[in-house]
Amino acid sequence: MGKEIQWNDQVDVLIVGSGFAGLTAAIEACESGKDVVIIEKMKRAGGNSVISDGGIAAPGTKLQKKRGIEDSEKMMYDDMLKAGLGLNHPNLLRTVVSNARGAFEWTLDALDVPYLDRVDIFGGHSVPRCYTPEGVTGGTILKKLLQKVDELGIPILYSTSFRSIMTDEQGHVTGGNVLKEYDYKTDTGIPAKIKTKRGIILASGGYGADVPFRSIQDPRLDETIQTTNKPFATAEVLRAALSINAASVQLSHIQLGAWSSPDEHGFGHGPLFADYILFQYGMIVDPHTGERFVNELGDRKQSADAILRTGHPCIGIADDRSVKYSGWDISKAIRKGVVRTFDSVDDLAAFYDMNTAVLQASIGRYNGFVQKGTDDDFQKPIVDDASPIENAPFYAMRLWPKVHFTMGGLSINERSQVLDFSGNTVDGLYAAGEVVGGVHGASRLGSCAITECIVFGRISGQNI
Amino acid sequence: MGKEIQWNDQVDVLIVGSGFAGLTAAIEACESGKDVVIIEKMKRAGGNSVISDGGIAAPGTKLQKKRGIEDSEKMMYDDMLKAGLGLNHPNLLRTVVSNARGAFEWTLDALDVPYLDRVDIFGGHSVPRCYTPEGVTGGTILKKLLQKVDELGIPILYSTSFRSIMTDEQGHVTGGNVLKEYDYKTDTGIPAKIKTKRGIILASGGYGADVPFRSIQDPRLDETIQTTNKPFATAEVLRAALSINAASVQLSHIQLGAWSSPDEHGFGHGPLFADYILFQYGMIVDPHTGERFVNELGDRKQSADAILRTGHPCIGIADDRSVKYSGWDISKAIRKGVVRTFDSVDDLAAFYDMNTAVLQASIGRYNGFVQKGTDDDFQKPIVDDASPIENAPFYAMRLWPKVHFTMGGLSINERSQVLDFSGNTVDGLYAAGEVVGGVHGASRLGSCAITECIVFGRISGQNI
Repeated sequence: MGKEIQWNDQVDVLIVGSGFAGLTAAIEACESGKDVVIIEKMKRAGGNSVISDGGIAAPGTKLQKKRGIEDSEKMMYDDMLKAGLGLNHPNLLRTVVSNARGAFEWTLDALDVPYLDRVDIFGGHSVPRCYTPEGVTGGTILKKLLQKVDELGIPILYSTSFRSIMTDEQGHVTGGNVLKEYDYKTDTGIPAKIKTKRGIILASGGYGADVPFRSIQDPRLDETIQTTNKPFATAEVLRAALSINAASVQLSHIQLGAWSSPDEHGFGHGPLFADYILFQYGMIVDPHTGERFVNELGDRKQSADAILRTGHPCIGIADDRSVKYSGWDISKAIRKGVVRTFDSVDDLAAFYDMNTAVLQASIGRYNGFVQKGTDDDFQKPIVDDASPIENAPFYAMRLWPKVHFTMGGLSINERSQVLDFSGNTVDGLYAAGEVVGGVHGASRLGSCAITECIVFGRISGQNI
Repeated sequence: MGKEIQWNDQVDVLIVGSGFAGLTAAIEACESGKDVVIIEKMKRAGGNSVISDGGIAAPGTKLQKKRGIEDSEKMMYDDMLKAGLGLNHPNLLRTVVSNARGAFEWTLDALDVPYLDRVDIFGGHSVPRCYTPEGVTGGTILKKLLQKVDELGIPILYSTSFRSIMTDEQGHVTGGNVLKEYDYKTDTGIPAKIKTKRGIILASGGYGADVPFRSIQDPRLDETIQTTNKPFATAEVLRAALSINAASVQLSHIQLGAWSSPDEHGFGHGPLFADYILFQYGMIVDPHTGERFVNELGDRKQSADAILRTGHPCIGIADDRSVKYSGWDISKAIRKGVVRTFDSVDDLAAFYDMNTAVLQASIGRYNGFVQKGTDDDFQKPIVDDASPIENAPFYAMRLWPKVHFTMGGLSINERSQVLDFSGNTVDGLYAAGEVVGGVHGASRLGSCAITECIVFGRISGQNI
């Protein structure tokens, strides 16, 4: 039946993508005795992982115990399920939380990742359980992973784009079609076929920057909506898997960052001000009305949806006391013009073309809620150290959501094997990281993405 | 390349499914001169369409004008977009609303469907725009469609199950694999190949009864959750399209009916009491706490999610005055034991194992809201003709959501052509009705499903 395939290369395991999930999978697969190759379409490793802050969540760690923080797998499970609106796949969520501590310890023991001596809490977590590497960047973890990959002699083929999955007549994965010497700008390269004896691990990331793909699932997310992701966060590998009958899970669950500025590209510097100062201590107004319209401490989905519904960027406002109290250095955001300072509320109102009297009234009403400790309008939880917005200079930032994370992706089981729509495994196909769907349900909590990458990276590498 | 295919049959157009979308498509295709065959896996026509109440929504009709009802395509568009949380595909939604009146008039002029002389409003519509056929059943429309199909001499092959789509090397649809003499219980039949000169129209309905398929997208919807659909509302035709690279849209958007009873199968008799009496004039309590927990007039999604979160069926309560005032005959629900009557609140509490004092207090609190016209706890809009719950007998019904409608499905364009994940058409493949995704976004409004079936049934039949 048909002519023999001309293979250009042969390996046990082909890994697609060199972010945290792919590199972790490669290390585990190699250490369990398999011959591994990693392909990466760009010229350097790291994908979106490298632009993250590197925070990883895990329950029951020594760092928590040292600080007397009571935590458990069940508590993390419940937090993620609550954020996910109960739509998380229970078996995958359980796999992530029960392997989270092991994943974090593996980054310490096997990789020697240096972490800051602190345990942080982010929105939606019920206790501090987030560990941040030195430099507050995923680059710190990436460097250690690449060192290990290098030590083990695992080749990374850069500028190599994955195009399609080859299967035999029984549907078993036999290899992949790739483009070598891939030119990202022209989407061209030299075709080659890599034969895989054990299979392929897809660790190609999300589709946050793939406008046609994401807007099929959420038509609001057309080209007018930016993304915090790198522009190469596209869906071609996911499409390739779907086209051989892999099942998609919850592709329409796409997370928007409400802390984003339309006045800078990518993740940028605004989110530090918005997420760490403004949402806790400040307020957001619609410049067309001069009034508040949302609980600033709602979850990412609530805030982003509310801002989108106004139809235009909204204005976040905080005062000097809160900025100083927070201790965060927002000078970069100010230098870039993303956060602006004003000597008075009148100046701020004039700059954003708002009615001063209305804005003053909105601030006064909000300050009243701060003083009595309850927000009658939007039920924002008033934090203990909140203070009224009253001390100049006033800080303001335009807010307009950006696509941040795609919860949807491929259907997998607890062993990281890709499934079809009937729940059967696609033989020889594994997936890990953001390309997988179902772990986070409707909404992902901060610092749980890296946990997922390491957990399923390890599992896929061990099992393939 | 390979041996010649042995075709058992040849037509211009193969239509899969004999509900409203499929029959409408067949009539239009035939009337535009094409040779058409309809296949239906069951022994009779109608699918889920026949169990609906037959209500169809359209703006700007004569029936509205006669009653002085101001309506427009824009108003219907906005209502559906609001219910859909802005996630509706704008081009498909526009196509539905701008062809809705024409579709309704076609059922009058071409089919002679008899409608009741009334215009109804259902939750989420801003004005009355829903027309109900005589008998308050989709069966009335079905009969007229079947008469027309018969007049035109279009064959319906019953007990014929669609299995897969055949394409040529360029990906053009060339025909379908079917099972004739299909036995639904054993899922077996006699394989046959039908060649299609122009293509295939998929009108196979939703996946509300397909537990494995739906629970991949919403893991809460396992086998413990019933459906109002017929048990044959499964996804095999949708899967067949996905496997030749058709794009899925919003598969995780699955609508639950909050007005369902766990004490009867299918749609049943409880919803009449719940949706038309209880939600307006009564209250829902969690039997474990004896307290209210939701706005009874929230949209389907809000109410169903809230009931699901309690983890157990909840109790809806209304009093005799409201039941009598509503004018609805709920005797069937009472005879079936789905709605129960009690001489006193004490009896009701005892039957459902609730603390009487707590329940009395909850009713008292709710009655206070009715009297002052505002619900401080859950912001239920208190209708003008609301009255306190105080007159025996008291009516109660257990509520537990059932899967009602699947908003997700295949990606199509305004011409009803199926698209892939890059937005390209799959040549020769069309889809209409519930198998299509994107028209309704996050949530479908009542009586808009039949509008969609007729609109895209007509468009697909005309265009193929």
